[in-house]
Amino acid sequence: MEDIITLDYGSGGGKTAELIDSILLPAFKNPILSQLGDGALLKDRRGENSFVFSTDSFVVSPWKFPGGNIGNLCVCGTVNDVCMAGGLPQYLSLSFILEEGFSFRDFKMIVDTIAEEARQAGVLITTGDTKVVEAGKGDGIYINTAGIGFLRAHFPGKSGIRKGDTVILSGSAGCHGAAVMMARSGLLSLQDAQTSSLRSDCQCLHLLTEAAIHAAEKTQTALPNSSPACSGIRIMRDPTRGGIATALNEFTENMPFSIEIEEDAVPVDAPVEAACDLLGLDPLYCACEGRMLLVTAPEACAPVLNALKEVPGGEHAAVIGTVTEDMPGHVLLKTKIGGKRILAKLSGQQLPRIC
Amino acid sequence: MEDIITLDYGSGGGKTAELIDSILLPAFKNPILSQLGDGALLKDRRGENSFVFSTDSFVVSPWKFPGGNIGNLCVCGTVNDVCMAGGLPQYLSLSFILEEGFSFRDFKMIVDTIAEEARQAGVLITTGDTKVVEAGKGDGIYINTAGIGFLRAHFPGKSGIRKGDTVILSGSAGCHGAAVMMARSGLLSLQDAQTSSLRSDCQCLHLLTEAAIHAAEKTQTALPNSSPACSGIRIMRDPTRGGIATALNEFTENMPFSIEIEEDAVPVDAPVEAACDLLGLDPLYCACEGRMLLVTAPEACAPVLNALKEVPGGEHAAVIGTVTEDMPGHVLLKTKIGGKRILAKLSGQQLPRIC
Repeated sequence: MEDIITLDYGSGGGKTAELIDSILLPAFKNPILSQLGDGALLKDRRGENSFVFSTDSFVVSPWKFPGGNIGNLCVCGTVNDVCMAGGLPQYLSLSFILEEGFSFRDFKMIVDTIAEEARQAGVLITTGDTKVVEAGKGDGIYINTAGIGFLRAHFPGKSGIRKGDTVILSGSAGCHGAAVMMARSGLLSLQDAQTSSLRSDCQCLHLLTEAAIHAAEKTQTALPNSSPACSGIRIMRDPTRGGIATALNEFTENMPFSIEIEEDAVPVDAPVEAACDLLGLDPLYCACEGRMLLVTAPEACAPVLNALKEVPGGEHAAVIGTVTEDMPGHVLLKTKIGGKRILAKLSGQQLPRIC
Repeated sequence: MEDIITLDYGSGGGKTAELIDSILLPAFKNPILSQLGDGALLKDRRGENSFVFSTDSFVVSPWKFPGGNIGNLCVCGTVNDVCMAGGLPQYLSLSFILEEGFSFRDFKMIVDTIAEEARQAGVLITTGDTKVVEAGKGDGIYINTAGIGFLRAHFPGKSGIRKGDTVILSGSAGCHGAAVMMARSGLLSLQDAQTSSLRSDCQCLHLLTEAAIHAAEKTQTALPNSSPACSGIRIMRDPTRGGIATALNEFTENMPFSIEIEEDAVPVDAPVEAACDLLGLDPLYCACEGRMLLVTAPEACAPVLNALKEVPGGEHAAVIGTVTEDMPGHVLLKTKIGGKRILAKLSGQQLPRIC
């Protein structure tokens, strides 16, 4: 570990995990934090696991990008983390760190975006804070949101994943990361026909998760009334920083199974492919902000996939892989030309400030 | 309103209120946010008001100051906001925005401080996030925490304040603000005997609030079992940015009463007085981070005061004023030399990055 914090520690890949494992987890050791999902499952005053809690700080650069701005992102990012942890999103907190000199007009536009995105997601902004730092001590605007959801479904998590399970991706890969990197590169103004329709996929996933959970529940044998246990879906994850390659590696790490992905089966939009070619990026490592990965039991696969396809934003959902026992602990990519290689976690690669 | 954000909008005074009233409240209008306390009172899935939610981002400069660092502050600040809203603090989220180049040793020291402060406050760090921004786009470290508490007591709020009520301050005024401003000024190394014992008052208030609530409850006529209604304490507020002058003005603003403070009765430590003289500050406008203001019913005053004095950190609690009907809407200061003047909200004065 270096002596100083470098940008790699914020990229969501191996270095971020190192920071969490070596400094944060040992300091705060408790059973809730150690679950390390997208959100924490919390007990209410009656001692029942009844709600879910998550937070994210948003430092995306530039704060405006094709398909959205930091206002969309700060609502969707946290709403989606609550959804991935099995929660029905209810309440958000909202905290701004503004840089002196930031335009009031832009601030108002971002605030209006937040209000509209929260309205669509059915969450209330309930508490907040505003700080201002001197010019040169920020970058226009940073936003933190924390979110609370009521527990809707309790998934088994990665320990519930079995050989033969299937991996579903709810839409095309890498749109958000590619859109932000194009905006940052300054190439957007020069863009050609191939990349001009590039848009972030930033969207709230609450309708998609509800559809998937509902479909999975119907495949289960009856459970005691009102039990939130949902075994048809083993785990859900929104592949943000580090993209789907990193999220899949978090599923397999230290586990007795592997996941085999068919490169051909992963939907990648043509503008994302073109932008990635231009920028030297791999769509599998580019962040999504409106997609989710689901590992399902074999019998839940078709019902979940069909349910996702019927919800706006899930039309391109696809089975992209299966759980096997070859090379346990790894993610394997069956390439378009028929080879098979290990798909590692993002590590050391600098893609900072994507969200 | 200007075209750009200036530092005044972050100072916690009139400009911050203007930003909230003109931009944030209209955009997010909902009954929970409109309560505008230190925290929001939220309904659980059963529809019962059962928990409290609050957030703050911490950008204090310098991040280390006499008596603490940003790690103490980010726990106490949010724990105290939960307490002020009548909650028993339970869970925290924790989110870092680190500047590239920040020292790992300092980061680890701050993390350890957070862990220890959270342990003492009895709250669990349950979920978190880490972002890194490029050198020159931050200032070492910014931290956001959001906190959840179970509802312990429901206070009537400012509309429950009546003529004859008393105002209690749980300890001496302005320590935190004076300590941070001295550290920032560079004068600390030159400090004389008078200011050398200056320390931030940063502490968690959960034991003090519990003692005060318990004492106030005993003065009430019996309520239906398990009702959290606590009318003996009308309202509690921790006077952070803008100090006690600003917090008191928030009580009286647009209300049919005034609050009269005895300058002589407000405890101000000698080192704070000396530091404020040196820096040209008024202790009544300097932030506290381990004090609270309480407005109590007349019959609850003595029991609450005595209860506070028995808890560590509350030894110097004092009655500092009363509620009257002279000049409704204002805070009046009876000065040491016998005059009486209006004590306005902090406005336009630049005391940014105190917390």
